[in-house]
Amino acid sequence: MARLVMKFGGTSVADLERIRNVAARVAQAVAAGDEVAVVVSAMAGATNQLVGWCQELSPLYDAREYDTVVATGEQVTAGLLAIALQTIGVDARSWVGWQIPIATDGQHGKARIDHIEGAELIRRMQAGQVPIVAGFQGVGPDRRITTLGRGGSDTSAVALAAALQADRCDIYTDVDGVYTTDPRIVAKARKLSHITYEEMLELASVGAKVLQTRSVELAMKERVRVQVLSSFSDAPGTLVVDEDEIMEQEMVAGIAYSRDEAKLTVRRVPDRPGVAAAVFFPLAEAGINVDMIVQNVSEDGTTDMTFTLNKTELPRARAVLESLHDSIGYAELAADSNVAKISVVGVGMRSHAGVAGTMFKALAGRGINIQVISTSEIKVSVLIAAEYTELAVRALHTAYGLDVA
Amino acid sequence: MARLVMKFGGTSVADLERIRNVAARVAQAVAAGDEVAVVVSAMAGATNQLVGWCQELSPLYDAREYDTVVATGEQVTAGLLAIALQTIGVDARSWVGWQIPIATDGQHGKARIDHIEGAELIRRMQAGQVPIVAGFQGVGPDRRITTLGRGGSDTSAVALAAALQADRCDIYTDVDGVYTTDPRIVAKARKLSHITYEEMLELASVGAKVLQTRSVELAMKERVRVQVLSSFSDAPGTLVVDEDEIMEQEMVAGIAYSRDEAKLTVRRVPDRPGVAAAVFFPLAEAGINVDMIVQNVSEDGTTDMTFTLNKTELPRARAVLESLHDSIGYAELAADSNVAKISVVGVGMRSHAGVAGTMFKALAGRGINIQVISTSEIKVSVLIAAEYTELAVRALHTAYGLDVA
Repeated sequence: MARLVMKFGGTSVADLERIRNVAARVAQAVAAGDEVAVVVSAMAGATNQLVGWCQELSPLYDAREYDTVVATGEQVTAGLLAIALQTIGVDARSWVGWQIPIATDGQHGKARIDHIEGAELIRRMQAGQVPIVAGFQGVGPDRRITTLGRGGSDTSAVALAAALQADRCDIYTDVDGVYTTDPRIVAKARKLSHITYEEMLELASVGAKVLQTRSVELAMKERVRVQVLSSFSDAPGTLVVDEDEIMEQEMVAGIAYSRDEAKLTVRRVPDRPGVAAAVFFPLAEAGINVDMIVQNVSEDGTTDMTFTLNKTELPRARAVLESLHDSIGYAELAADSNVAKISVVGVGMRSHAGVAGTMFKALAGRGINIQVISTSEIKVSVLIAAEYTELAVRALHTAYGLDVA
Repeated sequence: MARLVMKFGGTSVADLERIRNVAARVAQAVAAGDEVAVVVSAMAGATNQLVGWCQELSPLYDAREYDTVVATGEQVTAGLLAIALQTIGVDARSWVGWQIPIATDGQHGKARIDHIEGAELIRRMQAGQVPIVAGFQGVGPDRRITTLGRGGSDTSAVALAAALQADRCDIYTDVDGVYTTDPRIVAKARKLSHITYEEMLELASVGAKVLQTRSVELAMKERVRVQVLSSFSDAPGTLVVDEDEIMEQEMVAGIAYSRDEAKLTVRRVPDRPGVAAAVFFPLAEAGINVDMIVQNVSEDGTTDMTFTLNKTELPRARAVLESLHDSIGYAELAADSNVAKISVVGVGMRSHAGVAGTMFKALAGRGINIQVISTSEIKVSVLIAAEYTELAVRALHTAYGLDVA
């Protein structure tokens, strides 16, 4: 017997038939003797409609009213799933944020959960009732409804699992787990049975969008064991856990890629102390996130600075730097949107030498030029021309021995 | 300067364009210096969709979960209208039942309002903010969302007007007021500038469905002045008020009709004490409402008992009486669904003689046979064959001098 939080995303509850399927799955867990709490998203499409109405009425809508409108999507699903469960003989009760309560910091549209009051839900679970919790929302200090921002239902589920001291948080989605890379690119991609929080974070933030990043950070902080699995199959999913739980750590867990990046080079910047700050501080002030940064060795008293950023931020970054042309004193700006970032991720690389070397060799062997390199403790990323993305991912997947036998 | 509650029904907020129109109307009242609170229904069609989902999942759905699901419709409208108002420069804030709170007795699906906490809303109105209150709902003693049942938003509006000590409750709907009779039948029907609560109740319950009956009862009890008017025109509506407020009371306010009735006759019942109870007590126990009752004079130790009831109840009423055939000892049951009830309503008839006489004479003049008669202090009703409905209504409308000049 375990205590579980089961979370179902929008496609898993898209219509009444799927809500019935979810009910059947929950009933199965209850029949197996588990104590179960459920977290639900809005029915697929519902949130977009509600958001669309707010935006159409006013592009600068009041975030408090936006939250009041948009949070209804999950409330509907919670009530419907409770009815579906009762119909098949499972005692269930819906809960919205203010009822539990799920106390948030009151930042509308992007609230953070401060505290979940778990005692009453635990009491009911122990008495055999299944709480169905509306995800994505809570209540602020001023008794206004707050939402956690897009994808926030994953975070709701993990936070609830922590508050309920659950043994595991199962996130049901439309993929059946976390793969060594994108199966649409590499047919031999392998589903991972386990992955560490850190690896999941790196894979998620570079493109393998399975779990919302915030939910993984929270799971790592609260040591919540998370399982990612499909609501449309019975196959086991991928367990996201602490490093200690994984017996035989592979050197590399997976290969991620992102085509959302652009590269910006500031040419012939005077090579003097403080010039990097002169470039990057104004960008940060403008709210532009910079990812990889390289600065070449100086030759003639000037240097080239290259960095990557999200493609959508490129026009704003250019405008910021152009306005600083005279004060920085560079020769020109060169932008390139036709790039991809390829990352090799694995906690095993901490104790294994040669991970980067294997990467560079594999790419060189396919004639792929590396434009920028950046490394972290559990990741090596390179920037390459976008047209080589699939070739690079396949080459690396094979080079690290990740292909299905 | 007045303090107003403005209530907008589902067709008045059916889409974003209409919500913008409602916002403009509210802004106008605010600009005129009034303190305004607004009550909104769900967007037309939204409630039906939510109710349909509950019913499809389970015909015997849990009323607590039904309330959780269905109450979201008004929450969405309240948030959207707040955004629409802010966009045109009016300070507004949405409120759902638990936030105010609107405390109800917790009877799910048909809750009654116990108490509305008005102080905070009054404070905000005095500071120039417009509260937008989600109609149709409140919160029960167990902190569960409760709905007031269909049409409950009118009741929300009247109860709020009482709690806020408003000068008037304006109910915006898709008709522009209360007429002397159905304008689809009588082209010369006249819009009433005033009507008493009592008359409104009689007119509403016999077919002129403009305001929900419960809301009128509450308005009468709390002495809330209610105005019925159209959200699609600027014409003045009909004021529903206390009798004292109406200077020159007409004898008859209007002519109502209902085709929802059926007539059931129990023939040759033994004419002895207690026989009426033997017939009507079991019907009441089965939850069947009986309307008009007549008992003919006894001739041969037996009598005929005739009564009317809602058409939809006829099969159940027959079944109840057939099961009692031996104990009551009647000869036969005769049912007739092809009947209509025509009512003449007016508080003025208390002090004017001859109201019934005028009615009988007008009907006789058109060759219309009266099957059953029933009278109350402010109403005379007759049952006639259904095919004479329009003819009878027109004849009476003219006979009482109600036609537009």
